Amino acid sequence: MWNTASKADSSTPRIGISVGEPAGIGPDLLIQLAARPCPATLVAFCDPELLQSRARLLNIPLRINEITRSVDADSHTPGALIVIPVPLPAPVRPGQPDTANVRAMLHALEQAALSCMTRDLDALVTGPVQKSVVNDAGIPFTGHTEFLGELCRAEPVMMLADDNLRVVLVTTHLPLHQVSSALSPERLDRTLRITLHDLRARFGISEPNLLVCGLNPHAGEQGHLGSEEIQVITPVLERLRAEGARIHGPMPADTAFLPQSLAGMDAVITMFHDQGLPVLKSRGFGGIVNITLGLPIIRTSVDHGTALALAGTGRADPGSFIAALNCARELARHSATGP
Amino acid sequence: MWNTASKADSSTPRIGISVGEPAGIGPDLLIQLAARPCPATLVAFCDPELLQSRARLLNIPLRINEITRSVDADSHTPGALIVIPVPLPAPVRPGQPDTANVRAMLHALEQAALSCMTRDLDALVTGPVQKSVVNDAGIPFTGHTEFLGELCRAEPVMMLADDNLRVVLVTTHLPLHQVSSALSPERLDRTLRITLHDLRARFGISEPNLLVCGLNPHAGEQGHLGSEEIQVITPVLERLRAEGARIHGPMPADTAFLPQSLAGMDAVITMFHDQGLPVLKSRGFGGIVNITLGLPIIRTSVDHGTALALAGTGRADPGSFIAALNCARELARHSATGP
Repeated sequence: MWNTASKADSSTPRIGISVGEPAGIGPDLLIQLAARPCPATLVAFCDPELLQSRARLLNIPLRINEITRSVDADSHTPGALIVIPVPLPAPVRPGQPDTANVRAMLHALEQAALSCMTRDLDALVTGPVQKSVVNDAGIPFTGHTEFLGELCRAEPVMMLADDNLRVVLVTTHLPLHQVSSALSPERLDRTLRITLHDLRARFGISEPNLLVCGLNPHAGEQGHLGSEEIQVITPVLERLRAEGARIHGPMPADTAFLPQSLAGMDAVITMFHDQGLPVLKSRGFGGIVNITLGLPIIRTSVDHGTALALAGTGRADPGSFIAALNCARELARHSATGP
Repeated sequence: MWNTASKADSSTPRIGISVGEPAGIGPDLLIQLAARPCPATLVAFCDPELLQSRARLLNIPLRINEITRSVDADSHTPGALIVIPVPLPAPVRPGQPDTANVRAMLHALEQAALSCMTRDLDALVTGPVQKSVVNDAGIPFTGHTEFLGELCRAEPVMMLADDNLRVVLVTTHLPLHQVSSALSPERLDRTLRITLHDLRARFGISEPNLLVCGLNPHAGEQGHLGSEEIQVITPVLERLRAEGARIHGPMPADTAFLPQSLAGMDAVITMFHDQGLPVLKSRGFGGIVNITLGLPIIRTSVDHGTALALAGTGRADPGSFIAALNCARELARHSATGP
């Protein structure tokens, strides 16, 4: 009675999309994206009325095809969007988040992720969420990465990447004073193994090379500027090297990103948020994508926030959203063909 | 009886040089530099025998003119070097630091700095020191910056800069886990005031604009990812703004270095070593110079280490040393003409 076969060509990647904060630029980006050609099946988990009203505001024509099961989705056609409706209880005013819509927003995200877990969809692309609004609604939330980790009962690893550089974070959204105590051998070991696994299985890199930064200035300078390199990092790296992994470091973060250091490396492992991301984002090499490793599903995201002031203005730049979609298609392709 | 008038043209900047670790590339860089023209008076505080033996190893002709008082120095002529002798007690083997030479090396640095404090010289350029070797000699030492601060009884502030970007560090060579507690309102206030003062007095910028980073990811995201922005940073910035200073932030470090954020800014203030320096060094825009603000003297330095493996090979790149010398000349010129 249930037809689980896809209507679309089985070689076309099937991508679920959540727009994130409805008062932010997520809906704008999706509408801009829908107007373009895309060799994929796209399924948005969203309130159709939100998309229609935002499209009118942006003066972009949009035809919405509502479906109830993601397996029924066809390939994307420009100007149209396939939507699984997830209604929002409160009206949306661009630029003005409403805590009343937080649970519905997270429900849409969950539904999209579950469609990937059941393999009805191949990958998930997420729009930006305003963490403080979720917290103000009484829900503990430190980010998509951690949220999806709990939903999938997996240990997520955060990677950000442009076309030339992949940066992995061992710790993510922690106050700086908590970073040192959070850097356990178990966490570092797990992060490195997940990164190695996913670079092979999802990026098609058969023998990945990882460059690992130290935690302290000058990677601790032989213990004179901190001891975590000696006590935590180096023992973990040596164990993985003994198993055959190609892992280099710990290297001072301020020399790790020189061209001669990066040559031949497939990812740089940084110990905390502001050690790796300022470099990556300052390079300005096209759209930067946020990729969650370590999940049973493929998930990519924009690298920016909700940009509330730009919502509904038509001035939001879809570059990172397009890059996230292209990255999800690429990862789905590698994952389908196997390592 | 003492002739304190300079023999060189009074408009020519007079630069003292210390080579740092004698077994490192500091001597190599100075010898490479001496072979070139330079519109300045250069006075090296060094063991003449070290320079002669290293010059023979590098196969670079070098004529040494020993003097005893820096006021007697003439303008630089290519291929020659004016040296105030500071003998080393132990023979120097390139690449193999000897703790027996540490005190003499620091004495040379002190002599050069004192010549600047007495105004016999206009600026000090320092070669790289191996901190661990100094520590192994039983002397507490975390860097030139801190050493010169103590010598001058001043609060030093560390700036690194290329031709387009100046980065200031509020904390410098501290283990990461000590950064949060070291970030006091007093330290931040002092760092900002010194930076503003020196940008005016030494860089000739009459109304400097400073961009200040937060300490935590996303600059704490309204307190959700750390409280130092609210409790420490913002109150200090507001006080200085009320006094008329042009200070922007606190801004998340991962967006502070985007071109649109940097436009019109004269320096970026980062809270710790690996928040600012990976970005600056990864840009590769020519030689990077380390500049110590807040001292009664002008001091610049290379941005790299001793590169022991390259000492005596002729493969050391003098780019940063030349940039440090040019920067010292420029700062001396602004300081002479006044803000």
